[in-house]
Amino acid sequence: MKELEDRIASEGVVRDGGVLKVGSFLNHQCDISLFDRMGAAWAEHFSGKRVDKILTIEASGIGIACMAARHFGNVPVVFAKKSPSLNLDGAQYHVVIHSFTKDADFNVIVSKDFIQEGEHVLIIDDFLANGAATEGLIEICDQAGAIVEGIGIAIEKGFQPGGACLRDRGYDLCSLAIIKSMDAQTGEVVFA
Amino acid sequence: MKELEDRIASEGVVRDGGVLKVGSFLNHQCDISLFDRMGAAWAEHFSGKRVDKILTIEASGIGIACMAARHFGNVPVVFAKKSPSLNLDGAQYHVVIHSFTKDADFNVIVSKDFIQEGEHVLIIDDFLANGAATEGLIEICDQAGAIVEGIGIAIEKGFQPGGACLRDRGYDLCSLAIIKSMDAQTGEVVFA
Repeated sequence: MKELEDRIASEGVVRDGGVLKVGSFLNHQCDISLFDRMGAAWAEHFSGKRVDKILTIEASGIGIACMAARHFGNVPVVFAKKSPSLNLDGAQYHVVIHSFTKDADFNVIVSKDFIQEGEHVLIIDDFLANGAATEGLIEICDQAGAIVEGIGIAIEKGFQPGGACLRDRGYDLCSLAIIKSMDAQTGEVVFA
Repeated sequence: MKELEDRIASEGVVRDGGVLKVGSFLNHQCDISLFDRMGAAWAEHFSGKRVDKILTIEASGIGIACMAARHFGNVPVVFAKKSPSLNLDGAQYHVVIHSFTKDADFNVIVSKDFIQEGEHVLIIDDFLANGAATEGLIEICDQAGAIVEGIGIAIEKGFQPGGACLRDRGYDLCSLAIIKSMDAQTGEVVFA
Protein backbone atom coordinates (compact mmCIF):
# COMPACT_ATOMS: atom_id res chain seq x y z
CA MET A 1 0.00 0.00 0.00
CA LYS A 2 1.84 2.99 -1.32
CA GLU A 3 0.21 5.52 1.01
CA LEU A 4 1.35 3.58 4.08
CA GLU A 5 4.88 3.17 2.69
CA ASP A 6 5.01 6.91 2.03
CA ARG A 7 3.97 7.70 5.58
CA ILE A 8 6.57 5.31 6.99
CA ALA A 9 9.24 6.85 4.75
CA SER A 10 8.34 10.42 5.68
CA GLU A 11 7.37 10.10 9.37
CA GLY A 12 8.87 6.84 10.62
CA VAL A 13 11.93 7.05 12.84
CA VAL A 14 14.39 4.16 12.72
CA ARG A 15 16.13 3.30 15.98
CA ASP A 16 18.86 0.83 16.79
CA GLY A 17 17.82 -2.76 17.36
CA GLY A 18 15.33 -2.90 14.51
CA VAL A 19 12.91 -0.45 16.13
CA LEU A 20 10.65 1.66 13.90
CA LYS A 21 8.71 4.48 15.57
CA VAL A 22 5.45 5.27 13.79
CA GLY A 23 3.63 6.91 16.68
CA SER A 24 2.64 9.95 14.65
CA PHE A 25 0.06 8.03 12.61
CA LEU A 26 -0.21 4.37 13.68
CA ASN A 27 0.27 3.43 17.31
CA HIS A 28 0.13 6.48 19.56
CA GLN A 29 -1.58 9.09 17.42
CA CYS A 30 -4.04 7.40 15.03
CA ASP A 31 -4.73 8.72 11.54
CA ILE A 32 -8.34 7.63 11.17
CA SER A 33 -8.56 8.34 7.44
CA LEU A 34 -5.47 6.22 6.83
CA PHE A 35 -6.91 3.45 9.03
CA ASP A 36 -10.08 3.56 6.93
CA ARG A 37 -8.12 3.11 3.70
CA MET A 38 -6.07 0.31 5.30
CA GLY A 39 -9.36 -1.42 6.14
CA ALA A 40 -10.48 -1.03 2.54
CA ALA A 41 -7.21 -2.56 1.32
CA TRP A 42 -7.63 -5.60 3.56
CA ALA A 43 -11.26 -5.95 2.49
CA GLU A 44 -10.12 -6.02 -1.14
CA HIS A 45 -7.43 -8.62 -0.43
CA PHE A 46 -9.72 -10.86 1.62
CA SER A 47 -12.81 -10.38 -0.56
CA GLY A 48 -14.73 -13.61 -0.99
CA LYS A 49 -13.62 -14.93 2.38
CA ARG A 50 -16.09 -15.42 5.17
CA VAL A 51 -15.18 -13.22 8.13
CA ASP A 52 -17.40 -13.55 11.21
CA LYS A 53 -15.12 -11.72 13.57
CA ILE A 54 -11.88 -9.77 13.77
CA LEU A 55 -9.37 -10.69 16.46
CA THR A 56 -6.60 -8.32 17.50
CA ILE A 57 -4.49 -7.61 20.58
CA GLU A 58 -4.36 -4.57 22.82
CA ALA A 59 -3.46 -1.82 22.53
CA SER A 60 -2.26 -0.71 19.09
CA GLY A 61 -4.29 -3.26 17.16
CA ILE A 62 -7.65 -2.04 18.41
CA GLY A 63 -8.03 1.15 16.39
CA ILE A 64 -7.08 -0.36 13.06
CA ALA A 65 -9.20 -3.45 13.73
CA CYS A 66 -12.28 -1.33 14.57
CA MET A 67 -11.87 0.81 11.46
CA ALA A 68 -11.26 -2.33 9.36
CA ALA A 69 -14.42 -3.99 10.69
CA ARG A 70 -16.52 -1.40 8.86
CA HIS A 71 -15.25 -2.90 5.61
CA PHE A 72 -16.25 -6.41 6.67
CA GLY A 73 -19.93 -5.76 7.36
CA ASN A 74 -19.37 -4.31 10.85
CA VAL A 75 -18.36 -7.69 12.30
CA PRO A 76 -17.45 -7.67 16.01
CA VAL A 77 -13.86 -6.93 16.98
CA VAL A 78 -12.42 -8.92 19.88
CA PHE A 79 -9.20 -7.71 21.40
CA ALA A 80 -6.99 -10.10 23.34
CA LYS A 81 -5.84 -8.68 26.66
CA LYS A 82 -2.38 -8.70 28.12
CA SER A 83 -2.80 -9.88 31.66
CA PRO A 84 -0.39 -9.97 34.58
CA SER A 85 -2.26 -12.93 36.04
CA LEU A 86 -4.28 -15.81 34.69
CA ASN A 87 -7.85 -16.53 35.62
CA LEU A 88 -7.77 -20.25 36.17
CA ASP A 89 -11.50 -20.87 36.18
CA GLY A 90 -11.41 -22.10 32.59
CA ALA A 91 -13.44 -19.21 31.23
CA GLN A 92 -10.55 -17.85 29.17
CA TYR A 93 -8.29 -18.96 26.39
CA HIS A 94 -4.75 -18.07 27.27
CA VAL A 95 -1.34 -18.19 25.69
CA VAL A 96 2.07 -17.03 26.78
CA ILE A 97 3.77 -14.70 24.32
CA HIS A 98 7.43 -13.78 24.34
CA SER A 99 8.15 -10.13 23.67
CA PHE A 100 11.52 -9.81 21.97
CA THR A 101 11.39 -6.03 22.40
CA LYS A 102 11.01 -6.29 26.16
CA ASP A 103 12.70 -9.70 26.51
CA ALA A 104 9.89 -10.94 28.72
CA ASP A 105 6.97 -13.35 28.58
CA PHE A 106 3.44 -12.14 29.10
CA ASN A 107 0.03 -13.75 29.32
CA VAL A 108 -2.58 -13.05 26.68
CA ILE A 109 -6.20 -13.91 27.35
CA VAL A 110 -9.51 -13.97 25.50
CA SER A 111 -12.80 -14.83 27.16
CA LYS A 112 -14.25 -18.09 25.83
CA ASP A 113 -17.53 -16.23 25.34
CA PHE A 114 -16.16 -14.24 22.43
CA ILE A 115 -14.43 -16.73 20.12
CA GLN A 116 -16.55 -19.75 19.27
CA GLU A 117 -15.93 -23.06 17.58
CA GLY A 118 -16.44 -22.83 13.83
CA GLU A 119 -16.21 -19.05 13.61
CA HIS A 120 -14.20 -17.62 10.74
CA VAL A 121 -11.69 -15.15 12.14
CA LEU A 122 -9.55 -12.46 10.55
CA ILE A 123 -6.52 -11.53 12.65
CA ILE A 124 -5.44 -7.88 12.45
CA ASP A 125 -2.40 -6.25 14.05
CA ASP A 126 -0.15 -3.24 13.55
CA PHE A 127 3.24 -4.97 13.40
CA LEU A 128 4.62 -8.36 12.44
CA ALA A 129 8.27 -9.03 13.25
CA ASN A 130 9.14 -12.34 14.89
CA GLY A 131 5.49 -13.26 14.80
CA ALA A 132 5.10 -14.05 18.49
CA ALA A 133 1.91 -12.01 18.98
CA THR A 134 0.33 -13.29 15.75
CA GLU A 135 1.20 -16.89 16.59
CA GLY A 136 -0.42 -16.35 19.99
CA LEU A 137 -3.64 -15.12 18.38
CA ILE A 138 -3.62 -18.12 16.02
CA GLU A 139 -3.16 -20.43 18.99
CA ILE A 140 -6.17 -18.83 20.69
CA CYS A 141 -8.24 -19.50 17.55
CA ASP A 142 -6.95 -23.09 17.52
CA GLN A 143 -7.92 -23.55 21.16
CA ALA A 144 -11.41 -22.26 20.32
CA GLY A 145 -11.78 -24.41 17.21
CA ALA A 146 -12.17 -21.26 15.13
CA ILE A 147 -10.89 -20.96 11.56
CA VAL A 148 -8.19 -18.37 10.80
CA GLU A 149 -9.29 -17.04 7.42
CA GLY A 150 -6.44 -14.60 7.11
CA ILE A 151 -4.02 -12.25 8.79
CA GLY A 152 -3.92 -8.52 8.04
CA ILE A 153 -0.83 -6.66 9.18
CA ALA A 154 -0.02 -2.98 8.74
CA ILE A 155 3.78 -3.15 8.83
CA GLU A 156 5.76 -6.35 8.40
CA LYS A 157 9.45 -6.32 9.21
CA GLY A 158 10.45 -8.53 6.31
CA PHE A 159 13.98 -8.88 7.67
CA GLN A 160 12.61 -10.79 10.65
CA PRO A 161 11.21 -14.32 10.34
CA GLY A 162 7.54 -13.96 11.37
CA GLY A 163 6.04 -13.34 7.92
CA ALA A 164 7.95 -16.07 6.10
CA CYS A 165 7.06 -18.57 8.81
CA LEU A 166 3.32 -17.77 8.58
CA ARG A 167 3.35 -17.96 4.75
CA ASP A 168 5.20 -21.29 4.90
CA ARG A 169 2.44 -22.62 7.14
CA GLY A 170 -0.09 -21.64 4.48
CA TYR A 171 -1.74 -18.65 6.13
CA ASP A 172 -3.18 -15.94 3.89
CA LEU A 173 -1.08 -13.04 5.17
CA CYS A 174 -1.67 -9.54 3.83
CA SER A 175 0.93 -7.03 5.04
CA LEU A 176 0.22 -3.54 3.73
CA ALA A 177 3.88 -2.49 3.95
CA ILE A 178 6.81 -4.91 4.06
CA ILE A 179 10.14 -3.48 5.14
CA LYS A 180 13.10 -5.16 3.51
CA SER A 181 15.71 -3.24 5.43
CA MET A 182 16.12 -0.10 7.49
CA ASP A 183 19.08 1.84 8.77
CA ALA A 184 19.16 3.64 12.12
CA GLN A 185 22.16 5.75 11.04
CA THR A 186 20.75 7.13 7.79
CA GLY A 187 17.08 6.68 8.70
CA GLU A 188 16.50 4.99 5.34
CA VAL A 189 13.70 2.46 5.01
CA VAL A 190 13.66 0.10 2.00
CA PHE A 191 10.42 -1.69 1.12
CA ALA A 192 10.13 -5.14 -0.42
CA MET B 1 -28.66 6.91 24.98
CA LYS B 2 -31.43 4.35 25.15
CA GLU B 3 -29.68 1.77 22.96
CA LEU B 4 -26.65 1.72 25.26
CA GLU B 5 -28.82 1.49 28.38
CA ASP B 6 -30.70 -1.42 26.81
CA ARG B 7 -27.45 -3.26 26.05
CA ILE B 8 -26.21 -2.71 29.59
CA ALA B 9 -29.51 -3.95 30.99
CA SER B 10 -29.60 -7.04 28.80
CA GLU B 11 -25.90 -8.03 28.60
CA GLY B 12 -24.15 -6.31 31.50
CA VAL B 13 -23.17 -8.46 34.46
CA VAL B 14 -23.04 -6.80 37.87
CA ARG B 15 -20.39 -8.05 40.26
CA ASP B 16 -19.65 -7.23 43.87
CA GLY B 17 -17.64 -4.11 44.54
CA GLY B 18 -19.40 -1.94 41.98
CA VAL B 19 -18.03 -3.88 39.02
CA LEU B 20 -20.03 -3.94 35.77
CA LYS B 21 -18.91 -6.39 33.08
CA VAL B 22 -19.78 -5.20 29.57
CA GLY B 23 -17.18 -7.20 27.67
CA SER B 24 -19.71 -8.57 25.20
CA PHE B 25 -20.11 -5.22 23.42
CA LEU B 26 -17.86 -2.52 24.90
CA ASN B 27 -14.45 -3.44 26.26
CA HIS B 28 -13.42 -6.91 25.17
CA GLN B 29 -15.68 -7.62 22.20
CA CYS B 30 -16.50 -4.37 20.39
CA ASP B 31 -19.85 -3.75 18.71
CA ILE B 32 -18.74 -1.49 15.89
CA SER B 33 -22.24 -0.41 14.85
CA LEU B 34 -23.01 0.60 18.42
CA PHE B 35 -19.68 2.47 18.63
CA ASP B 36 -20.64 4.33 15.47
CA ARG B 37 -23.96 5.44 16.94
CA MET B 38 -22.22 6.43 20.19
CA GLY B 39 -19.90 8.60 18.12
CA ALA B 40 -22.90 10.20 16.44
CA ALA B 41 -24.48 10.91 19.83
CA TRP B 42 -21.33 12.65 21.08
CA ALA B 43 -21.09 14.62 17.83
CA GLU B 44 -24.63 15.84 18.35
CA HIS B 45 -23.96 16.84 21.96
CA PHE B 46 -20.69 18.61 21.17
CA SER B 47 -21.85 20.16 17.88
CA GLY B 48 -20.61 23.69 17.47
CA LYS B 49 -17.49 23.01 19.53
CA ARG B 50 -14.09 23.03 17.94
CA VAL B 51 -12.45 19.61 18.23
CA ASP B 52 -8.93 19.32 16.84
CA LYS B 53 -8.09 16.02 18.44
CA ILE B 54 -9.56 13.22 20.52
CA LEU B 55 -7.60 12.01 23.55
CA THR B 56 -8.30 8.65 25.16
CA ILE B 57 -6.42 6.04 27.17
CA GLU B 58 -5.48 2.49 26.32
CA ALA B 59 -6.93 0.01 25.91
CA SER B 60 -10.73 0.12 26.00
CA GLY B 61 -11.00 3.77 25.01
CA ILE B 62 -9.26 3.32 21.67
CA GLY B 63 -12.01 1.63 19.67
CA ILE B 64 -14.78 4.01 20.70
CA ALA B 65 -12.50 7.02 20.21
CA CYS B 66 -11.53 5.93 16.69
CA MET B 67 -15.14 5.31 15.69
CA ALA B 68 -16.15 8.64 17.27
CA ALA B 69 -13.44 10.51 15.34
CA ARG B 70 -15.32 9.82 12.11
CA HIS B 71 -18.11 12.04 13.41
CA PHE B 72 -15.69 14.88 14.17
CA GLY B 73 -14.17 15.25 10.70
CA ASN B 74 -11.71 12.36 11.09
CA VAL B 75 -9.60 14.25 13.64
CA PRO B 76 -6.57 12.36 14.97
CA VAL B 77 -7.03 10.13 18.00
CA VAL B 78 -4.22 10.08 20.55
CA PHE B 79 -4.23 7.36 23.14
CA ALA B 80 -2.37 7.78 26.40
CA LYS B 81 -0.22 4.80 27.29
CA LYS B 82 0.04 3.04 30.60
CA SER B 83 3.72 2.68 31.21
CA PRO B 84 5.63 0.69 33.81
CA SER B 85 8.49 3.18 33.60
CA LEU B 86 8.86 6.85 32.82
CA ASN B 87 11.01 8.25 30.08
CA LEU B 88 12.75 11.11 31.82
CA ASP B 89 14.07 12.87 28.75
CA GLY B 90 11.24 15.39 28.85
CA ALA B 91 9.66 14.22 25.62
CA GLN B 92 6.50 13.01 27.34
CA TYR B 93 3.70 14.38 29.43
CA HIS B 94 3.13 12.07 32.35
CA VAL B 95 0.71 11.72 35.21
CA VAL B 96 0.27 9.12 37.92
CA ILE B 97 -3.22 7.65 38.08
CA HIS B 98 -4.59 5.64 40.97
CA SER B 99 -6.63 2.61 39.96
CA PHE B 100 -9.28 1.93 42.60
CA THR B 101 -10.11 -1.38 40.91
CA LYS B 102 -6.54 -2.62 41.21
CA ASP B 103 -5.61 -0.48 44.23
CA ALA B 104 -2.37 0.56 42.58
CA ASP B 105 -0.80 3.62 40.98
CA PHE B 106 0.31 3.56 37.39
CA ASN B 107 2.06 5.96 35.07
CA VAL B 108 0.27 7.37 32.06
CA ILE B 109 2.24 9.03 29.29
CA VAL B 110 1.61 10.96 26.10
CA SER B 111 4.36 12.07 23.76
CA LYS B 112 4.70 15.86 23.67
CA ASP B 113 4.63 15.59 19.88
CA PHE B 114 0.96 14.71 19.84
CA ILE B 115 -0.80 17.21 22.12
CA GLN B 116 0.09 20.80 21.37
CA GLU B 117 -0.50 24.12 23.10
CA GLY B 118 -3.78 25.70 22.00
CA GLU B 119 -5.30 22.52 20.58
CA HIS B 120 -8.95 21.89 21.35
CA VAL B 121 -9.28 18.38 22.74
CA LEU B 122 -12.24 16.08 23.28
CA ILE B 123 -11.58 13.40 25.90
CA ILE B 124 -13.31 10.05 25.28
CA ASP B 125 -13.35 6.99 27.52
CA ASP B 126 -15.47 3.93 28.17
CA PHE B 127 -16.05 4.31 31.93
CA LEU B 128 -16.19 7.12 34.46
CA ALA B 129 -16.34 6.11 38.11
CA ASN B 130 -14.04 7.89 40.55
CA GLY B 131 -12.71 9.93 37.65
CA ALA B 132 -9.04 9.15 38.18
CA ALA B 133 -8.32 8.29 34.53
CA THR B 134 -10.30 11.26 33.20
CA GLU B 135 -8.62 13.64 35.65
CA GLY B 136 -5.29 12.29 34.46
CA LEU B 137 -6.14 13.01 30.83
CA ILE B 138 -7.27 16.54 31.78
CA GLU B 139 -3.97 17.06 33.60
CA ILE B 140 -2.08 16.00 30.48
CA CYS B 141 -4.05 18.58 28.45
CA ASP B 142 -3.26 21.19 31.13
CA GLN B 143 0.44 20.33 30.96
CA ALA B 144 0.31 20.77 27.19
CA GLY B 145 -1.63 24.03 27.34
CA ALA B 146 -4.43 22.40 25.34
CA ILE B 147 -8.11 23.25 25.86
CA VAL B 148 -10.46 20.49 27.05
CA GLU B 149 -13.60 21.17 25.02
CA GLY B 150 -15.56 18.30 26.47
CA ILE B 151 -15.54 14.80 27.88
CA GLY B 152 -17.48 11.96 26.25
CA ILE B 153 -18.04 8.89 28.42
CA ALA B 154 -19.88 5.71 27.48
CA ILE B 155 -20.89 4.54 30.97
CA GLU B 156 -20.82 6.77 34.04
CA LYS B 157 -21.22 5.16 37.43
CA GLY B 158 -23.38 7.91 38.85
CA PHE B 159 -23.10 6.46 42.35
CA GLN B 160 -19.38 7.24 42.35
CA PRO B 161 -18.09 10.82 42.59
CA GLY B 162 -16.18 11.30 39.30
CA GLY B 163 -19.01 12.73 37.20
CA ALA B 164 -20.30 15.18 39.81
CA CYS B 165 -16.78 16.42 40.46
CA LEU B 166 -16.13 17.10 36.76
CA ARG B 167 -19.49 18.88 36.31
CA ASP B 168 -18.80 21.00 39.42
CA ARG B 169 -15.53 22.08 37.84
CA GLY B 170 -17.47 23.22 34.77
CA TYR B 171 -16.50 20.57 32.27
CA ASP B 172 -18.97 19.73 29.50
CA LEU B 173 -19.40 16.05 30.33
CA CYS B 174 -21.59 13.87 28.11
CA SER B 175 -22.13 10.38 29.53
CA LEU B 176 -24.25 8.24 27.23
CA ALA B 177 -25.51 6.06 30.08
CA ILE B 178 -25.49 7.05 33.74
CA ILE B 179 -26.01 4.28 36.26
CA LYS B 180 -27.81 5.39 39.39
CA SER B 181 -27.50 2.09 41.18
CA MET B 182 -26.84 -1.57 40.48
CA ASP B 183 -27.21 -4.72 42.49
CA ALA B 184 -24.85 -7.68 42.27
CA GLN B 185 -27.40 -10.01 43.89
CA THR B 186 -30.35 -9.32 41.58
CA GLY B 187 -28.29 -8.11 38.60
CA GLU B 188 -30.56 -5.08 38.33
CA VAL B 189 -29.16 -1.85 36.88
CA VAL B 190 -31.06 1.42 37.43
CA PHE B 191 -30.27 4.38 35.18
CA ALA B 192 -30.42 8.04 36.17
